[in-house]
This record gives sequence, C-alpha cells and structure tokens, in this order.
Amino acid sequence: MENKRYYGIDVGGTTVKIGLTENGAVLDKWSVPTDTSDGGRNILPDIIRSLPGPAAGAALAVPGAVLPDDTVNRCVNLGWGVCRPAEEFTAVSGIPCRVLNDANAAALAEQRLGGGKGFESVLFVALGTGVGAGVVLDGRLRVGARGTAGEIGHLCLDPLDTAAACTCGHTGCLEQYASATGISRLAAQAGYPGLTSKQIVDAAAAGDGKLEAVVDRACDALGRGIASACAIIDPETVVLGGGVALAGEYFRAKVQAAFDRYAFHACLGTEIRLATLGSDAGMLGAALYAMDRP
Amino acid sequence: MENKRYYGIDVGGTTVKIGLTENGAVLDKWSVPTDTSDGGRNILPDIIRSLPGPAAGAALAVPGAVLPDDTVNRCVNLGWGVCRPAEEFTAVSGIPCRVLNDANAAALAEQRLGGGKGFESVLFVALGTGVGAGVVLDGRLRVGARGTAGEIGHLCLDPLDTAAACTCGHTGCLEQYASATGISRLAAQAGYPGLTSKQIVDAAAAGDGKLEAVVDRACDALGRGIASACAIIDPETVVLGGGVALAGEYFRAKVQAAFDRYAFHACLGTEIRLATLGSDAGMLGAALYAMDRP
Repeated sequence: MENKRYYGIDVGGTTVKIGLTENGAVLDKWSVPTDTSDGGRNILPDIIRSLPGPAAGAALAVPGAVLPDDTVNRCVNLGWGVCRPAEEFTAVSGIPCRVLNDANAAALAEQRLGGGKGFESVLFVALGTGVGAGVVLDGRLRVGARGTAGEIGHLCLDPLDTAAACTCGHTGCLEQYASATGISRLAAQAGYPGLTSKQIVDAAAAGDGKLEAVVDRACDALGRGIASACAIIDPETVVLGGGVALAGEYFRAKVQAAFDRYAFHACLGTEIRLATLGSDAGMLGAALYAMDRP
Repeated sequence: MENKRYYGIDVGGTTVKIGLTENGAVLDKWSVPTDTSDGGRNILPDIIRSLPGPAAGAALAVPGAVLPDDTVNRCVNLGWGVCRPAEEFTAVSGIPCRVLNDANAAALAEQRLGGGKGFESVLFVALGTGVGAGVVLDGRLRVGARGTAGEIGHLCLDPLDTAAACTCGHTGCLEQYASATGISRLAAQAGYPGLTSKQIVDAAAAGDGKLEAVVDRACDALGRGIASACAIIDPETVVLGGGVALAGEYFRAKVQAAFDRYAFHACLGTEIRLATLGSDAGMLGAALYAMDRP
C-alpha cells in the first residue's frame, strides 16, 4: 500500500519536520536536527536516513526562493546556494521528489486543511521574521513564472521611508512594517527598543496605548498590502499565519479593519481568517504538494 | 458548420463591435450604435437583430464590473445597473452567452493573439480613461472570486495624496496617476491645464522637459504598480494596452525602467510589451471567452 504514501518534509533552519501521510492523514511524524555545517551537505542524507521506507513521493519545503523547475535559489538558513535538492533526494532515496517554498507549502495546507478549508482560492500570509506568502487558485498552489507568486512582503508601500530599508534592496516594503522584525523596528522608532513582536502585541492588548499605536501602524500596513493583493488576485478569503498571527483575534480584527479601509469596494466582504495548523503547516503542505504533483 | 462559430461582442459606450469567428479567425465584423436611452434596454435587441445567424456561443464584453456568475454590477456608460444580460441574450437569440469585463476580454485576446502571444501567464494593463486590467494564468482568464482580479488601477500608491481622490472613494490609487485622466491631472498640477494625455506624451517625446517630468511621474507610478502586481501573481510577461499605450516604445521604455527600479529582485527580467490588437482586442477576447467557456 505504500504507493499512496507521501512524505512531507519541512526543512527549517534548526529542525527538519517530517510527516508520513496517506490520503492527507498523517500516519507518523518525527524530526531530525538540521546540520547546517559544510554548506548544509548533510541535510538530505540525514533526512533520508530517518525515513522508514519507500513512498509514492515526497516534497521538501525550504526557507528560500524556489523556481518553477524546482531549482532552489539560495536558502541562507540552510547554507544552500543555487541547487537542485529534489534530484539529489531522488537519486539517493529512489523516491520522486519536489521542492517548494515553505510559506507556499503552508499556504497549500491551510487552504486544504486549515483556516482556508472550504475555499478554492486563498491568499496566505505568514508573519514571521519576514513576511512569507502563498497563493492557491482553483485549489492548486500557484508558484508563478519565477517562483515569487504571493510575495506580498515586498509590496512597496512607502518608497520614501528611508528608515524602512529592506533586505531586498528597496525601501518601504510591507515586510519592514508587518513582520516580527518590522513591528520591533516600529516600536524602537517609537522609543521602545529591544522588544519582541510578541511582547509588543501582548502589551498593546493589555492596554499600553503607545504600543497599541505601534501595532495599529503594523496592521494598517498589512491591511493595505492585503487590499492591494486582493485587488490583483481576488481570492475568496485570506489566511494569516506565522508567529505574529498567534496573537489571535486581537491582531486579526485590526488587520481586517485596515483591509476594510483600503480595499477596492468590490473586494469588501473578503474575510481575513487565522491559520489553524500551527507549525505543522509546512510539513502537511509539502505532503499535499507531493500528492498533487507526483 | 455553424456550431464552431462564436460571436465576440464588445459593448462600448458609443459603438458595439461585433465579430463572427471560427477557430479564432474573424470571418466577418461589423458594428451597431449603442443606444443608451431608456436604461440601455435597446442595446441587446439591436445587437441580436444585426446577427447573421445562429452560432455555438457568444460573449458580451462590457465596460463595468462582472461577477463570476456573469451578473453585471453596473455599466454606467451603457445605462445598465445590476443585470444579467447573458440570460436575456440567450432567451431572445437562442445562442448560449457569457459576459465579461472589457479589459478582461482584451487581456485574453492579447495573451492568445497579441502582445502576449507565446506566454501562458500574462498581466494585461489597459490605460484609458481609467486603468483596466486582466490576468491570464495557465492560458485561462482569471476573473477572481468577486470579478476584480487584475484591478491594478486601484492599488493604493499614496494614501496621503489628497489631490489624488479616486472615483472609487479612496485616495492615491494608481489610476489617478497613470490613466489618460491621471496624466492630464498631473499636467494640470504642473501648470499645464486642459491637455489630453496624447498631447502631453507627444510634447514630452518632442522634448518638452516639464511635460516629460509629468510623463515620468505617471510611468513611475505605473511601473511601481506593475511591480506590486508581479510580486503577487508573477506572470511571464506584462502587456500594456489602451489609448495611452499607443504612444509606443517611448512610453513603454519608461514604464519598463520604473518597473526595474521597483521590482522584487526575483521578478527582474519580466518584460513589459505593447499590445498589438488595438481596438479589436475586446471583440476578439469575447469570442475567445465564448469558445473557452461555451
């Protein structure tokens, strides 16, 4: 029966999460440490050694850009440059393999099984160190012609805000306001250096007016960016995930209010929902991707 | 053989352009005046009366919002409110009919037969009185969950620019800078009131430095908006159409340069092309849409 089984493999900077799935159900899951030494060359052998047996397919969710032909274009956190890990994985394991971006994997999982369940078109936005994203249309993940589909984190919101220099080389990207890093940056600007985004959102929710203004500014940027993305792809719904979104309804409601302020009138009514799969989303999405495109 | 024939019908504010096509080739084309009197109730009967015979299908391209179920949500220029013209068309003519937005129709035509030929995913941007747009992915037109897919004209570029109040109710929409109306507005702001966008672009191309600065500002906004859209949908290519784009390579090169300034690095290399089908694009796209979704 192993030919209906798929491995979903979420390769993070410190841990690799692996799940063995059958018809979308997780039969078993485990993890292995990510050995980033030596250009990350032990990562794939370590993963393959941990697998209990053959399968119909596998997919690797990785923290970096992936081109539509499964070429990885750098994963700084893994030590990988431009490489083709699916080929190496298949050559050693004998298991057909695909590669996708980790936020894209989470998008697919949240659309099928999580916060976007019941919708065929979903914009997923993951608020972590950066802002990741993914687009599912007609029930299928869209990676785009160059693998950037959904890259809402680099929408240019304010090209003149020189305080918001982005790692991408531009200025005023959404990521500089709405990621965990961005929220901490805004708080530091407001006179509260050294706080994590969780500390900031918790204090704001507990009634700190100055930090609430910081959170409002982050949510305003995020709502405006999501409004732009919805004008372009017009999904049925939007799902917010990642660490920052763990702040829950307090944060979601602020993003929804900002979206409603900026949205093109025909997009009003688009609901912003919270992700539900937590840190399993990448692994689950990778397994679904392997099933979709064996 | 009439069951392979499709009518493409582009319903404009003054003229309806109609084409009879077979396998994508135009066998005949003609037009009828648009009678907007009496809430536009004569438009469909006038069209149907002009048809030479039965066909396998038809589609109406209309200047307004169309929901995915073919409900029209107002066409101010036609006198139509919320209505379902495809049903009326079919009831009277016996020909299966669909409805789509006119810029969406032009997008499909340009992707299959025009400036985007050879590409499966295209963002089309039409610069006219407003900024229309359409998205083709995997060779199929995507209208979105609420019919707004591609609505690049209402990307919010500068929410604080109160001089750029948009008809949509917001401030600082792309349309306020890059449409024919927007370019005239920017020129008036710069001390040149009463000029058409064609006069402005022609004078700029002929060496008027102040008007070139106006055109540069319009192209900067358009390039930034296209860069945002490409980060989200990541098409293979972008096609510029509509009256303003008739300015040709002078205008295109400026938009490409602005795109290259703002684009997310992975999107660099996306080429902006000029539309080639002119004013037939809506009619041709409607016929293709009728063929795609009979």
